[in-house]
Amino acid sequence: MFAEIAALSADPPGVTREAYAPGEDAALAKIAAFAADLGLAAEEDAYRNLWVRIPGDDRAEPPVAIGSHLDSVPHGGNYDGLAGVVAGLLAMARFRDRPSAAPPLRVLAMRGEESAWFGKAYLGSLALLGKLGPGALDLRHRDGRTTLAEAMARTGLPVDDVRAGKPLIRPSDLAAYLELHIEQGPVMTARGWPVSAVTGIRGNLRHNLVRCVGEAGHSGAVPRWLRKDAVLAVAELLSRMDEHWRVLLQMGMDLVMTAGILTTAPESHAVSVIPGEARFSFEIRSQDAATMERFYDLTREECRAVERARGVRFVFDDRIDTAPAAMDAAWIARFSDAATRLGRPFENIPSGAGHDAAVFANAGIPSAMLFVRNANGSHNPDEAMDLGDFLQGVEVLAEALRA
Amino acid sequence: MFAEIAALSADPPGVTREAYAPGEDAALAKIAAFAADLGLAAEEDAYRNLWVRIPGDDRAEPPVAIGSHLDSVPHGGNYDGLAGVVAGLLAMARFRDRPSAAPPLRVLAMRGEESAWFGKAYLGSLALLGKLGPGALDLRHRDGRTTLAEAMARTGLPVDDVRAGKPLIRPSDLAAYLELHIEQGPVMTARGWPVSAVTGIRGNLRHNLVRCVGEAGHSGAVPRWLRKDAVLAVAELLSRMDEHWRVLLQMGMDLVMTAGILTTAPESHAVSVIPGEARFSFEIRSQDAATMERFYDLTREECRAVERARGVRFVFDDRIDTAPAAMDAAWIARFSDAATRLGRPFENIPSGAGHDAAVFANAGIPSAMLFVRNANGSHNPDEAMDLGDFLQGVEVLAEALRA
Repeated sequence: MFAEIAALSADPPGVTREAYAPGEDAALAKIAAFAADLGLAAEEDAYRNLWVRIPGDDRAEPPVAIGSHLDSVPHGGNYDGLAGVVAGLLAMARFRDRPSAAPPLRVLAMRGEESAWFGKAYLGSLALLGKLGPGALDLRHRDGRTTLAEAMARTGLPVDDVRAGKPLIRPSDLAAYLELHIEQGPVMTARGWPVSAVTGIRGNLRHNLVRCVGEAGHSGAVPRWLRKDAVLAVAELLSRMDEHWRVLLQMGMDLVMTAGILTTAPESHAVSVIPGEARFSFEIRSQDAATMERFYDLTREECRAVERARGVRFVFDDRIDTAPAAMDAAWIARFSDAATRLGRPFENIPSGAGHDAAVFANAGIPSAMLFVRNANGSHNPDEAMDLGDFLQGVEVLAEALRA
Repeated sequence: MFAEIAALSADPPGVTREAYAPGEDAALAKIAAFAADLGLAAEEDAYRNLWVRIPGDDRAEPPVAIGSHLDSVPHGGNYDGLAGVVAGLLAMARFRDRPSAAPPLRVLAMRGEESAWFGKAYLGSLALLGKLGPGALDLRHRDGRTTLAEAMARTGLPVDDVRAGKPLIRPSDLAAYLELHIEQGPVMTARGWPVSAVTGIRGNLRHNLVRCVGEAGHSGAVPRWLRKDAVLAVAELLSRMDEHWRVLLQMGMDLVMTAGILTTAPESHAVSVIPGEARFSFEIRSQDAATMERFYDLTREECRAVERARGVRFVFDDRIDTAPAAMDAAWIARFSDAATRLGRPFENIPSGAGHDAAVFANAGIPSAMLFVRNANGSHNPDEAMDLGDFLQGVEVLAEALRA
């Protein structure tokens, strides 16, 4: 399945399956064909997501959905998203002849998870739950030419319904949402874990631009006590926060901190000029909203201390928040118990990247994720999931579903 | 004098007196006219510097030269350089009617001190002493069109002699070189000192580009223990060096340290990507060559410590050295004694910026400098020297010359 879908979305280097566009359509059609080969029944909903079920399983209670997305980033890897849909099919197939051995099941193949296409993530899952928001329809494609509304219309979606926030499912319609995904970090490879349960999906708190404003001056002629050096001020701030981060990890908190962009003012910086301004981005992530908020407050407090000590000013742009999502404790336990019964090594790790599971969880649907070990990160052609690891993940998933 | 020369070199904002070009020529001609008005005799040497003497003072022993340069940076201030030449004229005028009250004197108005024009400083004083070096003649003007050789030829210099390193004076031809200059830093303004003696001219030691190479990664998905964050590595390095600097100043050393340029890789940095590379400049200045060398060694040692702790690599470009210059202790004492006799407050400070005096000192000529208080730094139209402070400086200079 992986090879056939990779072939039809090949775009060297890597694969491209564009959201609400033919690349994604083709992958969905192929998944429907695979479902039919496995004796399963596939149908599209009004927003053109694919739902797969076991024919004849007509139980009325809300089903457990197993799913992920089929779009990729441009020139991305084949497994990010696709692995979760294929895992759902394989797990469901195990119950085809005896559906009652598991709760009612659906495999859900969604669209438009990657923010690479329209600058916003989780388009498919948000629309499904009526939470996309009317402004999203006007988002521009990365090529600048078309909007999301136009792409959805071309794909056959009822754009007025999407814009009006008409949900296709209510939270109570699903008993749970389960998603298998490749790990996008290096932890499982470093630790030697093939499959893990995800404890939660980290939220994040960002400033895209913080300016540290000091005072430029002649590097030879201004002594230390008269300097307002923006670079040394930012260096001190980041070193203080890095040290706090180290300590808080030791104390068991879930936290990452990143200043991904840092630059002196290109229009005026020079080797022999005391830097009068430094600009940087600052991002905090945690599974725990309170941890993020407190670490943010600590950051602002340290800024004030550096301001007082060094005569600089920190100027912050608008803060951007993305809420964390807790994964369902009962399902994490079921995954863990299943792995134990299978004699498989099993650990829990947080997800640093976002997933559709966060949308379902924050809508109130019990949600859980399995990570499969993957080298080289995601969103690039070098992602590397071992199929043996993947099949261990499918096994754990199926075992956890067993009644 | 200041007003008339400012008027003929006005180039709003500020003044422009280009090296080896008509703006500098006009200022030299005006200085010669002022000299004549004061009853002094001016003549040019072969490299078109201006030498002023007291007519009739035919003593054979080597004279004391008092001087500075007449070129400015583009849109610079009026006092940087010019103040030293005017001070020389005014001090010399005091001895016009009784030359024997001072040692034999010359006022020396030089060209081409500012590196802004051909990327290299001290062109006039280096050529005078035969130390310019043949390669300098091929340096390009900041406009990219002409070379220093062409500008010198247009100004009437014998370019072959300059290129051959033919000196116009030997070090033993001068008893001393004295230079009054505006302070280019804020220390005298902050301390309330109108005139100071310069203890030495700081040398510097530079890397224009140091690369810290770490590893990029997803900001949410890579935990602290697996990161190789180039920004946090540079922040730690600079914070360590800043703390060492603070301690060494407390221990009485002369030292400044500047990372004037710092930037993550613009082609790949992003808010949610762990920075895989950070690039920065690093400069150390001191009056003492051993202090610079030891602080440099300490920097490299701290780089190795950060490399080991954080899994990054620091890659240094070629190191560039400019030697410090010691000012003559006997002349510093004469300045100080003169100020005491005049009842003037007087202190010593280092010069962070370079001056022609460094060239004379490093050629073995006893050299000394007076700084006059100046707000707003130099190389900009806002430099602000009080004429009362300047005249105090002239008084100290003349008193120190009194036999």
